[in-house]
Amino acid sequence: MDMAVFRITCRVAWVDVDGAQVLHHSNYLRLFERVEEEFYEHLGLGSGFRFFIEREIWLPRVEVFCKYKAPARLGDMLEVSLSIEEVKEKAVRYSFTVEKKDGGVIVAEGYVVAVAADKNFEKAVIIPPEIAEKLTLFKNG
Amino acid sequence: MDMAVFRITCRVAWVDVDGAQVLHHSNYLRLFERVEEEFYEHLGLGSGFRFFIEREIWLPRVEVFCKYKAPARLGDMLEVSLSIEEVKEKAVRYSFTVEKKDGGVIVAEGYVVAVAADKNFEKAVIIPPEIAEKLTLFKNG
Amino acid sequence: MDMAVFRITCRVAWVDVDGAQVLHHSNYLRLFERVEEEFYEHLGLGSGFRFFIEREIWLPRVEVFCKYKAPARLGDMLEVSLSIEEVKEKAVRYSFTVEKKDGGVIVAEGYVVAVAADKNFEKAVIIPPEIAEKLTLFKNG
Amino acid sequence: MDMAVFRITCRVAWVDVDGAQVLHHSNYLRLFERVEEEFYEHLGLGSGFRFFIEREIWLPRVEVFCKYKAPARLGDMLEVSLSIEEVKEKAVRYSFTVEKKDGGVIVAEGYVVAVAADKNFEKAVIIPPEIAEKLTLFKNG
Repeated sequence: MDMAVFRITCRVAWVDVDGAQVLHHSNYLRLFERVEEEFYEHLGLGSGFRFFIEREIWLPRVEVFCKYKAPARLGDMLEVSLSIEEVKEKAVRYSFTVEKKDGGVIVAEGYVVAVAADKNFEKAVIIPPEIAEKLTLFKNG
Repeated sequence: MDMAVFRITCRVAWVDVDGAQVLHHSNYLRLFERVEEEFYEHLGLGSGFRFFIEREIWLPRVEVFCKYKAPARLGDMLEVSLSIEEVKEKAVRYSFTVEKKDGGVIVAEGYVVAVAADKNFEKAVIIPPEIAEKLTLFKNG
Repeated sequence: MDMAVFRITCRVAWVDVDGAQVLHHSNYLRLFERVEEEFYEHLGLGSGFRFFIEREIWLPRVEVFCKYKAPARLGDMLEVSLSIEEVKEKAVRYSFTVEKKDGGVIVAEGYVVAVAADKNFEKAVIIPPEIAEKLTLFKNG
Repeated sequence: MDMAVFRITCRVAWVDVDGAQVLHHSNYLRLFERVEEEFYEHLGLGSGFRFFIEREIWLPRVEVFCKYKAPARLGDMLEVSLSIEEVKEKAVRYSFTVEKKDGGVIVAEGYVVAVAADKNFEKAVIIPPEIAEKLTLFKNG
């Protein structure tokens, strides 16, 4: 369902390309995180994971996957979409799509599993219920 | 003169901060370059330094300077301004200011000198006159 | 078989950690690539993917996966290992392990599939046989 | 005096170059910081600025300058040297040189001024005397 998707756009910058003048593959994980941050802000939870940091909760990634389908070239305008695949008590699984704004070619698709953790990264903690509830609204499928 | 300034805004993201949760000092150079790229696009020259690349001209930096005045913290919205300090036949000197959008505190100020170079970085070349002319419009002072 | 593994060590630097003072998850992909580059150099193929670049072959990634098992903290010395899981005519699948040099805790494990591509990223090309042969020597299992 | 210089070597990696296949100019600041971290470790102060962090002291940069003299190309092995230009009660000024290991061409030169700050970045604090003393040993001139 399209309404359950959150989107940002961004341009492929000089500093983000590699020697082949395409977006370096590691930077897709940065894009995924950027849309995630903007998503939390969109939910009214403050910017930069502030909601979590203030509660001394980290959100370390436990799994990432990305399939690259076409090169994103220098100067391309990209649209990065986030949706929620699954919300568990202590973990959330996001899915991401990166496409070219002009033409709609899908550049990459992937997912990230993040776990809520205490500030020493020693054990998983419960995602605050008010967050879990909001995340569920963006659950796809 | 305020009209001679070009501005973008951007937020301090999780991936861009260091262990002190402030924008890593090297990332200011990335911000400077980002506003520069958007500036060229604003001038109608295409994105991602395309105008130069198509003419097989690189724009390597020969000098950068930055003075850091206040920390830019995770989640802060920043305004990055570019103006032109000097346009020479084969070089341009940009000046930059980074301030917090909320409150206007100046976070950093700096300059960058870039030289137009042939694609082997072997000699300086002339900045195409139609560019030099446009740059002059953003000359401050 | 242990002999089929290529290893480098590196330290978690200030610039590579995030606001939680642990290695940012996107930087694992950079580590994977770094050991890959050193591996090609170890094979006598020159540094920085030079062997491929000189033949106008790119090695874009088509798939990456990483499972994060423990945080890599600021200053930790890491050992990053590469082995070859599969060599096809036009693609190679590397697998990677990141562990702490001191204590041997596994920090992350993952794989990367790279395809040999022509310089316009338009079609896959054959991995030069002399490379394929060398890669096979590092095939695990 | 040559003995007052601390050096590391590192190779220009694929991820660190830009679309011109040369080290991106912002990455020189990362090199400067890397040699600084290794320098503190060499002084016996632990890795990753640990000595400072444990005392709740940050070392924010207040000024950086870099002059780029030649491109550092993909795969080049670089030597990065640090020396101490000045040690004040609450600040230190490092100077840096980057050269090609093979041939000795100077690629870049620069300096960085860092200030010792309390953990809220609100005021400068005194550099612990045992550090100041060690730094002085690397003072050039």
